[in-house]
Amino acid sequence: MSTLTDQLLKMEKHNSLFESAVRALPLPVCAAFGNAANPQAVTFANTSRILSTQDSDSVAKSFPNSVGASGNAVLASAGAHPKAAQGKRVAVLFSGGPAAGGHNVVCGLKRVLGPGNTLLGVKPGPKGLIKGQLFEIRDADIDGILNTGGFDYLGTDRTKIKTDAQFNHVRDTCINHKLDAIVVIGGDDSNTNAAVLAEFLFKDVKPDGSGVQVIGVPKTIDGDLQIGDLLPISFGFDTATKIYGEMVGNILQDTRSSLKYWHFIKLMGRSASHVTMEVALQTKPAITLISEEVAAKRQSLSAIVNQIAQTVVARAYQGINHGVVLIPEGLIEFIPEMHDLIAELNDVLAQNAAEFEALHTQARPMFVQNLLSAHNAALLASLPDYLVNMLLAERDSHGNLQVSLIPTEQLLIDMTARAIEDIDAQVPFSAHSHFLGYEGRCGAPTLFDAAYTYNLGLTAGSLILDGRTGYMATVTDLDQGGVPRAIPLTGLLNIERRHGKDEFVIEKALVKMDSPAMQYFVSRRADWAAEDRFCSPGPRQLWGSVANQMPMSVALNSGAQSLMFRIG
Amino acid sequence: MSTLTDQLLKMEKHNSLFESAVRALPLPVCAAFGNAANPQAVTFANTSRILSTQDSDSVAKSFPNSVGASGNAVLASAGAHPKAAQGKRVAVLFSGGPAAGGHNVVCGLKRVLGPGNTLLGVKPGPKGLIKGQLFEIRDADIDGILNTGGFDYLGTDRTKIKTDAQFNHVRDTCINHKLDAIVVIGGDDSNTNAAVLAEFLFKDVKPDGSGVQVIGVPKTIDGDLQIGDLLPISFGFDTATKIYGEMVGNILQDTRSSLKYWHFIKLMGRSASHVTMEVALQTKPAITLISEEVAAKRQSLSAIVNQIAQTVVARAYQGINHGVVLIPEGLIEFIPEMHDLIAELNDVLAQNAAEFEALHTQARPMFVQNLLSAHNAALLASLPDYLVNMLLAERDSHGNLQVSLIPTEQLLIDMTARAIEDIDAQVPFSAHSHFLGYEGRCGAPTLFDAAYTYNLGLTAGSLILDGRTGYMATVTDLDQGGVPRAIPLTGLLNIERRHGKDEFVIEKALVKMDSPAMQYFVSRRADWAAEDRFCSPGPRQLWGSVANQMPMSVALNSGAQSLMFRIG
Repeated sequence: MSTLTDQLLKMEKHNSLFESAVRALPLPVCAAFGNAANPQAVTFANTSRILSTQDSDSVAKSFPNSVGASGNAVLASAGAHPKAAQGKRVAVLFSGGPAAGGHNVVCGLKRVLGPGNTLLGVKPGPKGLIKGQLFEIRDADIDGILNTGGFDYLGTDRTKIKTDAQFNHVRDTCINHKLDAIVVIGGDDSNTNAAVLAEFLFKDVKPDGSGVQVIGVPKTIDGDLQIGDLLPISFGFDTATKIYGEMVGNILQDTRSSLKYWHFIKLMGRSASHVTMEVALQTKPAITLISEEVAAKRQSLSAIVNQIAQTVVARAYQGINHGVVLIPEGLIEFIPEMHDLIAELNDVLAQNAAEFEALHTQARPMFVQNLLSAHNAALLASLPDYLVNMLLAERDSHGNLQVSLIPTEQLLIDMTARAIEDIDAQVPFSAHSHFLGYEGRCGAPTLFDAAYTYNLGLTAGSLILDGRTGYMATVTDLDQGGVPRAIPLTGLLNIERRHGKDEFVIEKALVKMDSPAMQYFVSRRADWAAEDRFCSPGPRQLWGSVANQMPMSVALNSGAQSLMFRIG
Repeated sequence: MSTLTDQLLKMEKHNSLFESAVRALPLPVCAAFGNAANPQAVTFANTSRILSTQDSDSVAKSFPNSVGASGNAVLASAGAHPKAAQGKRVAVLFSGGPAAGGHNVVCGLKRVLGPGNTLLGVKPGPKGLIKGQLFEIRDADIDGILNTGGFDYLGTDRTKIKTDAQFNHVRDTCINHKLDAIVVIGGDDSNTNAAVLAEFLFKDVKPDGSGVQVIGVPKTIDGDLQIGDLLPISFGFDTATKIYGEMVGNILQDTRSSLKYWHFIKLMGRSASHVTMEVALQTKPAITLISEEVAAKRQSLSAIVNQIAQTVVARAYQGINHGVVLIPEGLIEFIPEMHDLIAELNDVLAQNAAEFEALHTQARPMFVQNLLSAHNAALLASLPDYLVNMLLAERDSHGNLQVSLIPTEQLLIDMTARAIEDIDAQVPFSAHSHFLGYEGRCGAPTLFDAAYTYNLGLTAGSLILDGRTGYMATVTDLDQGGVPRAIPLTGLLNIERRHGKDEFVIEKALVKMDSPAMQYFVSRRADWAAEDRFCSPGPRQLWGSVANQMPMSVALNSGAQSLMFRIG
């Protein structure tokens, strides 16, 4: 057998040359944790910063234990822990969609808990916690997953713990596995769930009457879990946007090489446009739509399309018959008229379900037209047939339209083509559509995400050893060494009407019109539309001089002096 | 204005931190070119290797000048050039789809031509050559494009120079711009075109009766321009497959994290399955289809679908409800029964065009059914409606089906879902489809492609200074320092029937069943299907210990001892 074949056989099961090399990458730690080779737990102290929302009173009533204990005060690390707990049994789980860096949270947790405590993995996600599927995580496991992407070490799922039976199953798991703490790695909904769980498990779980601690860790590629300077960004955002940024950069380069195509690229990110904003800042395409701006300016679909068409035509007159349009996944729902149309359609279809179902597909649009208010009927009539069919056909189990299934990128291409014909039929317009999504959730973490998540794990573990519950771990000042902190989850809760009843939620952070990132984007976009000024950000590097970049939007919004993050 | 904003403003127009850093990456050169800091032209000598095809006699008759001069002998570098030509005016152009590394060919050319000769860029592609759109390339231009992706410095197009008028226009361009040589950077068709051009321009172009030299450079991400040990791979293949490999690795990681999806991923690459094979070797997915194997085994569409369904079911019985299926772009045409059906459809539709066009869309399938032979009628009836409509609807200007428009990935998902229901309706099957294409053509070149293309440029320039014409530049022995060589283009030509007449072509290289890469793949695939053994190859690195990888299939097929390339 040849040397090469031997080498290839060894490269199966997460042993690509890249994966083997990144496992050996040294990671920096915040000064508070001491030496990077042997990080130590820190203790925490209240800061003068107290968090509140408009619903704080209701929250205090519903979460008396948690709010009573934390006073909703933000914590900051206060030096090496003088007497960190020993013998604790800590469970860790992923919740929701994967994001790069999750494995390093587990690694940081294991490292700071050390041999004196036990770390248990939950498989997979909240469902595994309900079912009590836990196993002990060993040091050797950690060596295998350090700096690798995905959530595949534990798996994940989207179960929301909400029924009494589910809460009791979790309590049983805590008792059966003698747990002292649970770490939930997840997004806004998962951290809301962590807050509820922290209150539920606050006391009377263990034989001595004490409770089980719950700590959240902020994850989501969407970037909609941001809390000003306390949480500059959730983990996974940097990796996802750098993956999409490279692909968009490659396609931009292709447009200027092939000289004949427009590419309409929809980017994952649910409601908020953070992902699209970040990718635009990295790549500088001709056109970028920001959902929050569309809503703020109350733009109509035809106004958006016209704006794109005008840019295509203006560039064609300069001899540029190519370009890229970036589209946030959630755009459709942010267009006020589409939002209204979808809402009325949901009502009309629910109220006339039987009659509607009995009709032949071709007869349905007219039937609905007659039931809609005049302006919505007119809007529906102006849309292409396939979109009308989609608007009428696809409802989820709650009777809502599944907006994510609407091919906004293709819709905009079709409508733009028509609009260009109206302006100047001689202008060539040949377009391709893309949706970048799954490719970005499980890539190998950037150095930023790798270091950030490792320190989030060290912080979460320290909070547990410090006896805290109901907090979200965070690391702030990412361009100045990094400071471990903790955010009281109850200080973030609002009341929102969902499925017909009031629920506590952590509000999704949307792109703010007055944020430095938005303002920088607005100041540059006319130039980017007028001529090719794009960049190719390239594949993310783990070695070399460009490896230490943080997201541009995060650097702008946090007032950083440079694009380079610095932890330690 | 803040420091950060200043930094961001400087990062427009190809000045991302990555692009700025890669421009400074040192590139190795083959020992034959001397010192990397100041590479020198080499001279060439005939080797004993004479190339021939079954159509060599016809080629010799049609290309008397070229064959007479080269004798179809392969050339090898024969030391530093004792007296390289001075004062030459050389034009360079891109032809066909972009591929990573094209800019470095231009850089290598400019470097080896030196200040004593003039390099002119043609904008864009063959169309620019016909129109005479040339400009002088300066040293400063080269500094700006070194190691960057895409063809955007010159642009490209797909014009094939074939009419007498076009050939005469090219001759006029040569005369008007006082050209001594043309370098065509392109794929199999473009190099065929280069051979024809070399013969046409062999003499009587310049006032002294001499001709204009033509040199080809082997480009294509598809990898179908390979000539055994003389041309282990075309440039751009490594970068494209590493981009697709990262995306597929990310998605594989996602499948094992989310634990509920199958992803069917179609990969660009036209007819041949080299791209798919390479990505499979890198990532080890559960299922990979190789078009050439389907053809060799005469597999039917339903046999392919059944094989996929059986694997999905077998994995489900092991508790694995996820996986990845890789599909080469050209699959459909390699399925013998589909190939036959499409061929008969093309005939039937051409012969009954008027009647067919007059029918309502819904009546067309039945009309065609009745005209087809029994087995093709039965096959057509077994296909989903949208595929039938597609097979009947889309013809290109030559009356041929546009196979690349068929969403094979979605077709296989739909048919697999039905096949699984027949086997065991309890098996869950939720699938997503992807097509990876444009993302891979214009990415920043890997170190392999960057170094390889720079040396191809040095080789092409040396051939010109050595007075050669009608050759394709190549660099062999890529794991052992690299040797500049030249392949006589006429030695590669075959006669193929295209559009009803005989044409000279360079045959596309397909995946060979007995190649080491195919055999290695066959030896491993059952294990990859049985359980998750995948790899995440990660983003391609330009710095660090993993930066020097060559394609796995190329390493296997060329008998390399390791995955690491070595030039210089």
